[in-house]
Parts: sequence; C-alpha cells; structure tokens
Amino acid sequence: MRVGIQESIPPDLLKDFPAEAEIVRLPLVPSAPIAIDFWVMPVSRRAAEAQFAQLRGVKAAQSLMAGVDWILPWLPKDITLCDGRGVHDIPTAELALALMLASLKWIPQYRDAQMRQQWTGQFAIGGSFHANNAEQPAAYLVLGDELHGKTVLIVGYGSIGAAIEARLAPFGVTVMRIARNPRENPVVHTMADLPQLLPQADIVVIQLPLTTESRGSIGNDFFAQMKPGALFINMARGPIVLTGALVDALQSGHIHAALDVTDPEPLPAGHPLWSAPNCLIVPHVGGSTAAFLGRGLALAARQVQHLLRNEPLENIVSNGY
Amino acid sequence: MRVGIQESIPPDLLKDFPAEAEIVRLPLVPSAPIAIDFWVMPVSRRAAEAQFAQLRGVKAAQSLMAGVDWILPWLPKDITLCDGRGVHDIPTAELALALMLASLKWIPQYRDAQMRQQWTGQFAIGGSFHANNAEQPAAYLVLGDELHGKTVLIVGYGSIGAAIEARLAPFGVTVMRIARNPRENPVVHTMADLPQLLPQADIVVIQLPLTTESRGSIGNDFFAQMKPGALFINMARGPIVLTGALVDALQSGHIHAALDVTDPEPLPAGHPLWSAPNCLIVPHVGGSTAAFLGRGLALAARQVQHLLRNEPLENIVSNGY
Repeated sequence: MRVGIQESIPPDLLKDFPAEAEIVRLPLVPSAPIAIDFWVMPVSRRAAEAQFAQLRGVKAAQSLMAGVDWILPWLPKDITLCDGRGVHDIPTAELALALMLASLKWIPQYRDAQMRQQWTGQFAIGGSFHANNAEQPAAYLVLGDELHGKTVLIVGYGSIGAAIEARLAPFGVTVMRIARNPRENPVVHTMADLPQLLPQADIVVIQLPLTTESRGSIGNDFFAQMKPGALFINMARGPIVLTGALVDALQSGHIHAALDVTDPEPLPAGHPLWSAPNCLIVPHVGGSTAAFLGRGLALAARQVQHLLRNEPLENIVSNGY
Repeated sequence: MRVGIQESIPPDLLKDFPAEAEIVRLPLVPSAPIAIDFWVMPVSRRAAEAQFAQLRGVKAAQSLMAGVDWILPWLPKDITLCDGRGVHDIPTAELALALMLASLKWIPQYRDAQMRQQWTGQFAIGGSFHANNAEQPAAYLVLGDELHGKTVLIVGYGSIGAAIEARLAPFGVTVMRIARNPRENPVVHTMADLPQLLPQADIVVIQLPLTTESRGSIGNDFFAQMKPGALFINMARGPIVLTGALVDALQSGHIHAALDVTDPEPLPAGHPLWSAPNCLIVPHVGGSTAAFLGRGLALAARQVQHLLRNEPLENIVSNGY
C-alpha cells in the first residue's frame, strides 16, 4: 500500500506508520503524476486541489481538519473521505474555555485599558455592556463576572463539545447539548428543542459543521431568543451566522460575543464586525498548536494500520469503497 | 451580641444571621461612638480605619478579603482577626484559569490586532515572543499554545490554590505545590524546594500572602531560574515582586506574564510595566464579582453562630481572646 504524505512533514512524525506501508513523500505540487492508495491531505483547499490533480489511484483521503466543507465540493465521490475528528479536541476545547473566561472576566476591555495605560477597573469601562449587565451590590465595585453557576448550551455536540464539557466540569456550570441525533446519558437534544433551550443559556457555543442546512441558520431570530447579556461563541464556521444579524445584536447591547471564525474570512479592515461593541475576535486559530501535526499523523498511521488489517476506517465522512 | 455591619449592605444578604444576634447597621463614618462585639469590616483600609475610630468594645473583626496585610498594621492585637479565606476561591481560581488560557492562546496579542482591524494570525505578531517560542513544525502555522501537558507550580498553596488545581484537573497538566507547611497527599513542598521545582514549571502562579518574608522575595534570581518561555502569574500582592526585575525579565524575552496585581498600584501611566512586552495586566479585579458579598456575609453569619454556640471561629489570623 502506497501512502502519500506531504514532504514538508518532519520524518520523526512518521514513526507510527506500519513498516508494510510504503511512504511516498509528496511535493506541494508534484511535477508528474504520482500513484498512491491512501492520501494524507494538505491542510488548505488550494494546496489540496492542486496536489490532487497529479495524484492517481487514490482510494481514501485523510483530512487532518475537523470540518470537511472545503473538501466535499471537489473530491470525487468514489474516494473514501475521513475527517480529523478528535485531532483538534484538546486545543479547540481549550480555546472555548479561553474565550469564555476572557469574556466573562472582561479581559478584552482590560487589555484595551492597558494599551491606554489606564488602571481603573470598572470606571475605565463605565457605561459599557459589562457595567450595565453586572448586578451592582451596594458598597462594592463589581469588576468581572463568574463562570460558576452559568448555563452553557453547546449547539453541535460532538467530540469537541464533549471535550469542552469535560473542561467545564469543575466550574459548577449546567451544560445543555444539541446535536443531530438525540441521546440519553448525557441527554443530547435536537434542534427542535432550540427555542426552549436557547432562552435558558448564559453562554451559547456554536460547534456545528457547515452544511447547506446550517449555513446562515443563525440570524435575528436566534439572537432575539438569547437571554439579555448572554455570551455567544462561534468556533465552528463563520457562514453559519448571518454577520449582519450578529452585528445588530451586538450594537443593540443585547449580547456579547467571542469569535474564532467570521464571515467573510479573513475579515477585511473597515468591516463593522471589527468595531462592534463587546466582541472579542481571534483570527481562526482553533486547533493550530504545535501539537496538531503529531496528533494528526498518529490518526493517519492508525488508519493505514486499519487498512492493512482490513479493519473499518475511523472518521468516515463519505465512503467511496 | 451586637454585630456591626455596613449599612450599605442590602438587607436580603442578612437573612442567614441568627435571630439572637442584634444587627447594628454602621454608617461609613459614624458620627458618634458605637458599641459592638463582632465587626464585619469594610473592604478598604481607609474606610475600615475611619470607621474603627468610632467603634467601641470590638472583640472580633471579620474581614471579607483573603489578604490581611492592610489590617495588621493598625488593628489592636487584643481583637481577634478573621480573614475571608474561602470567600474568594471561586472567582480568583476562575481568574487564574482566564489569565493562563488567555496568555497561552495569545488573546492579548489577537485583541491588539483586532483593535488594528488586522486579521493575520501569526504574521500580525511575527517576530514576537510567541512566534519565537512556539515550536514551528514545517508546513503548518502555529497560532497558539496549549495548556495540555504543561507543568504548573503554585507558590502559596492554600484554599485558592486548591480551587485553581481543581479547575486545572481536566486539562491534563502536572501541578506542583509550595506552602509554608509541607504535606503529603497531595504533596506540598516548602520554599526550600523552590530552586529544584521552579526550572521545571511552564506556568508559575504566585498566591503568597504579603508578609515581611514574602515582600520583595521575587526578583532577578527567581526569574532567572524560570524556564525560558514560561508564564509568570501574580494574583497575590504586587510588592511580593520586585517590579524592576520583572520588567527586565519581560524585556529580555525570557518569560511572559499575566498580572492581577502590580507594585505600585494603581500603576501610573508611563510606568515601564505597562509597555513591557508579553505582559497582560488586569487592574486587581481578583474576587470582585457580584457573588462576593453574598459569600462574605454567609461566612460572617456562620461566625456569629459559632460565637453564640461557644464554638471556635473559622479563619482566625490572630486571636485576641
């Protein structure tokens, strides 16, 4: 079996591949056709499409990314496609907690005050969303919120959602879950229950795949059903959300937000989302840590082992065999 | 028994006090002497000292804050002083995780890029501490770090330290602990082991009380022993750290930092710490959430109950009886 792997990947990451597999190192754009059976794909659409044009005989393609919306439009349907489910769980769940805690502790606002060299706690952000939404007990200045006691709704509860929930466990929160298929233990609801769950949530985390169903599915209605002062977090794909509706919900002071993804992406200078109030934006950093490649290649090596043993592949998105 | 409580505290927070106690509501500065037995103190030194000048017969004073360095210099030694141990555990431990995760996920740098309306991931912060310290696997852009796999050293391991450790549990980290008294299960080291533990830590959290021993105890030697690229977090008291040494350690690119406390405090505009590289500063927000007063008054109510039942008080710092 011939396994195609980018030649840029350091050799020490290939040690888990079984000796029976023949590793074929792929240049970014091969100058002549190359025959392989199993393809460990590049991580961008442009590179993957360009490389694929020179590949022959591919039976299965392994993406290292969680979402496959960028692959489905051009990869022939007779090739088995496997996604990177699990590879990104740790860094993405950590980012979810980072965005949640940073927003609740007003870190973006304090960072802005730091840039102004201004030490003033609440006074620096007086009149803001945060000051207005904080209960203000007499004789005491509230300088941040708590995660403790909050209700967190995860919309698109998969392996990343479970990893987020595991990290929330010691914080004393209530977690509600929505996925395509309902389950018990833990209870996973479907989208049909969204109207009942959404108004209960203090924090809403979007972790849906981008599909024709989910594209543009979060708009004015969704935001209007959110609890006033609630936190909206999108770490999935920008186009799931109607950006204009999000900007409106932020500008009205109804919610605050933290975004790892936007639509469009990259977000151009001058776009109203950049300056919408109470919104923290990080530039699609998701799972992009130094540990990513090692975890991704470990999955690819397991897949090759499965093929050699005639075992079923993991993470099959569409099965060409 | 007469229990003195600030008159600014909402009456619904007093419902846990036993009916046998006579609640005496105290104006910020009483115009005439007031006799009380148990004093629930204001939260600032200036207010507490001014009020105390008009109080008579105080046998025990309950502070709602964790640190008592601001009380010991002026409260007569024949008055029992109890601190707010436990009251701040939840919000302070949450802030520790927030500062840790925000720093590791480069949120301060991405927030600055957001203010410039610049979506560029690593390129926006290229050449920086973060880009230089991230392992850079070929063919892949590292856009953040992970908490997973890190070693966290908590210096001053008490109830807040334990609350931090509980919240770190699902993140796959190794926790090392230092306190005044060594313990087993979990292993708590003493300061004598600092030279051996400090170079192993990826993240160092200072949670020491401010005492004559701890004041100025963290300087050049301490920072030099830290692992290159490690994260220094101070959520205790600013004067424990020699600010000049911290600024030097940051400017040399040896470490990064997140600070809830500084010396001096408030940090004046123009102070070099404001602009030291790779340093997130929040203005002593620690435990200041809306839930604080309720938790503090619940402790005070328990203490009054203890006195009425001739039980020992909790959280005694110095026992005047």
